[in-house]
Amino acid sequence: MNAPVVAVVGGGQLARMMVPAATALGIHLRVLVESPTGSAAQVVVDAPVGQASDEAAISAIAEGADALTFEHEHVPNALLDRLAAAGVAVRPDAAALVHAQDKIVMRRRLTALGVPCPRWAPVTERDDLAAFLADQPDGTAVVKTARGGYDGKGVRVVASPDAADDWLAAAARPGGVPVLVEEKVPYTRELAVLVARRPSGEVRTWPVVESVQRDGVCAEVVAPAPDLADATRDEALAVAVRVAEGLGVVGVLAVELFEVPGAAGEPPRVLVNELAMRPHNSGHWTIDGAVTSQFEQHLRAVLDLPLGDPAPRARWTVMANVLGSTLEDLTHALPRVAALDPGAKVQLYGKDVRPGRKLGHVNVSGDDLDEVRARALAAAALLRGETL
Amino acid sequence: MNAPVVAVVGGGQLARMMVPAATALGIHLRVLVESPTGSAAQVVVDAPVGQASDEAAISAIAEGADALTFEHEHVPNALLDRLAAAGVAVRPDAAALVHAQDKIVMRRRLTALGVPCPRWAPVTERDDLAAFLADQPDGTAVVKTARGGYDGKGVRVVASPDAADDWLAAAARPGGVPVLVEEKVPYTRELAVLVARRPSGEVRTWPVVESVQRDGVCAEVVAPAPDLADATRDEALAVAVRVAEGLGVVGVLAVELFEVPGAAGEPPRVLVNELAMRPHNSGHWTIDGAVTSQFEQHLRAVLDLPLGDPAPRARWTVMANVLGSTLEDLTHALPRVAALDPGAKVQLYGKDVRPGRKLGHVNVSGDDLDEVRARALAAAALLRGETL
Repeated sequence: MNAPVVAVVGGGQLARMMVPAATALGIHLRVLVESPTGSAAQVVVDAPVGQASDEAAISAIAEGADALTFEHEHVPNALLDRLAAAGVAVRPDAAALVHAQDKIVMRRRLTALGVPCPRWAPVTERDDLAAFLADQPDGTAVVKTARGGYDGKGVRVVASPDAADDWLAAAARPGGVPVLVEEKVPYTRELAVLVARRPSGEVRTWPVVESVQRDGVCAEVVAPAPDLADATRDEALAVAVRVAEGLGVVGVLAVELFEVPGAAGEPPRVLVNELAMRPHNSGHWTIDGAVTSQFEQHLRAVLDLPLGDPAPRARWTVMANVLGSTLEDLTHALPRVAALDPGAKVQLYGKDVRPGRKLGHVNVSGDDLDEVRARALAAAALLRGETL
Repeated sequence: MNAPVVAVVGGGQLARMMVPAATALGIHLRVLVESPTGSAAQVVVDAPVGQASDEAAISAIAEGADALTFEHEHVPNALLDRLAAAGVAVRPDAAALVHAQDKIVMRRRLTALGVPCPRWAPVTERDDLAAFLADQPDGTAVVKTARGGYDGKGVRVVASPDAADDWLAAAARPGGVPVLVEEKVPYTRELAVLVARRPSGEVRTWPVVESVQRDGVCAEVVAPAPDLADATRDEALAVAVRVAEGLGVVGVLAVELFEVPGAAGEPPRVLVNELAMRPHNSGHWTIDGAVTSQFEQHLRAVLDLPLGDPAPRARWTVMANVLGSTLEDLTHALPRVAALDPGAKVQLYGKDVRPGRKLGHVNVSGDDLDEVRARALAAAALLRGETL
């Protein structure tokens, strides 16, 4: 056997969930894990321990690999450029990844590509922010750090420039993280499009989904997004493809979107909120709900294999996240979940329980959306330690 | 984390394919593998090396496990009894397993349970066989060794008692393997029922499938079995449940059946051919074609968790085995298979290529049986190294 080797930086649940697809296709996964007992390390045979900032560790896993990829964006781009120059298939490459690492770089590039975005501006001075706020209908806007934010971190709704003083001061220091401001989009809901692209150019999209956020974190995903106007769907898919192609993404790209009301008599529009250049929470439904999961597709894409069919396998699939739990160990809830719902597809991440932490998810598929959603939420509630 | 631990004896593809289900449910797999580079060893983190005949090795993996189970039946029953007496959850236990190990024990017990079987007789003397043959309409019958046969090995169609002389002589030696003879059933096709049972008694069956054999080996499985009379289906399911309950099986049981013509004006009947007390080739379609795969169900059953929904996820699923290949490494065919059929679900076992060896399989699901079947066979052909 001379299996293809995919090296993955990061040992969280996204790397963990690559295991089934890699096992099926005979792909050898080599995962750089932060801890020998972490989520991916529990289930990956070849899992050297090292940090994503450790250039020697990344170089070591890339050695002899058919592709080097990532389960998060916190990776040293200069090293990736050197590895690419030395012949490593870095996928996505640093030139693409930077758009998922730096929101200012992303906004500039998307604007240049004509991709619909919220109005935005880089902010270096207090006065920049004051001017932007003065332009807003309600005098508020969203300030973000350009790098390092996720799941609502590094994002702040402000009504006064004072509220960003700490970030602006930090940004002004050498090596500081730049700040940007965006309009507070009057969105009706959040959508997401997952798209995969391989180096030879083939692109595949899954159906547009609705992502339901609670406290700034994705709580559930409904696939496909209900009551979505055809034109809005087509725009969302076209935007995702334009981003994937325009940024030269390889692998899975998640494009998080705001749905906003259209002009009078027109269907709703979409604006790009965030990008993630890897399998993403908004695509976990594909594990059970699509012919090809995002994890299999990511592996195919980074190995430049023809992409799999992203068609849904059921009319509706709802994914409910398990965010925190009162249980010490989520497997203790398996008897209750299994007794409640023999068709609930549970995915546990093997992570220590902490408040609000993403510990697992549940997928349920079926013909009746209300029922499917209720079932997914009920199973997730049991895994959080609630009683029904 | 304090994950449930399932210890598995045997490191072939059946243990390998437990990995995705175990990963999803947060179950820790500990697999006793024959070789550190074998099929399961490639993808199981906790995979001590040892033979299934090595009592110390089996005792070691059972230590602290929530259940001890098997991917084949070649295990020392006396040890299993001792482990069970010492508190290990041996699932299935030796009292059940013996029916999958010894065809004479199986036939005796099934006959006592009133389960329809081919006419049969144990054979110790040449004259026993001669008498049985004289009773057959065409003077031929099927001679089998009671133990050690699989995939057509240990099975011989004979027209004369001479043809079994070697086996009878071997059987007569101390520790020899006994011999039985069965009528050559005039079957129209082979069916199989996969059933799962957990210790607390819950039983679930998947739909009856048709198993297409070539050269005594399963080549493809069609789920559900096409053109199956309702009464025949009901009988097949009832037979499987009766066997699972009657033998006290825990875990997945495969009941291989002959479909035989009914009396005039009556629907076809079934006769039990073979039993396997573990996930089985006839159930590989469930990985992609059922809400709960046989591998997830086996893990649930041996841990006495409520069983999952075995409902099919598509009208038809066809599984095509990859038996041998002209390729040195099956992953070399992935680009061709993926380009041919984006919806073909490929499962490679990571095994060295040998003529006729089960190296992988392909599942295809859809609404049109002819198309689904053609697609599965075409993808499997590419993996065998054929050109289309």
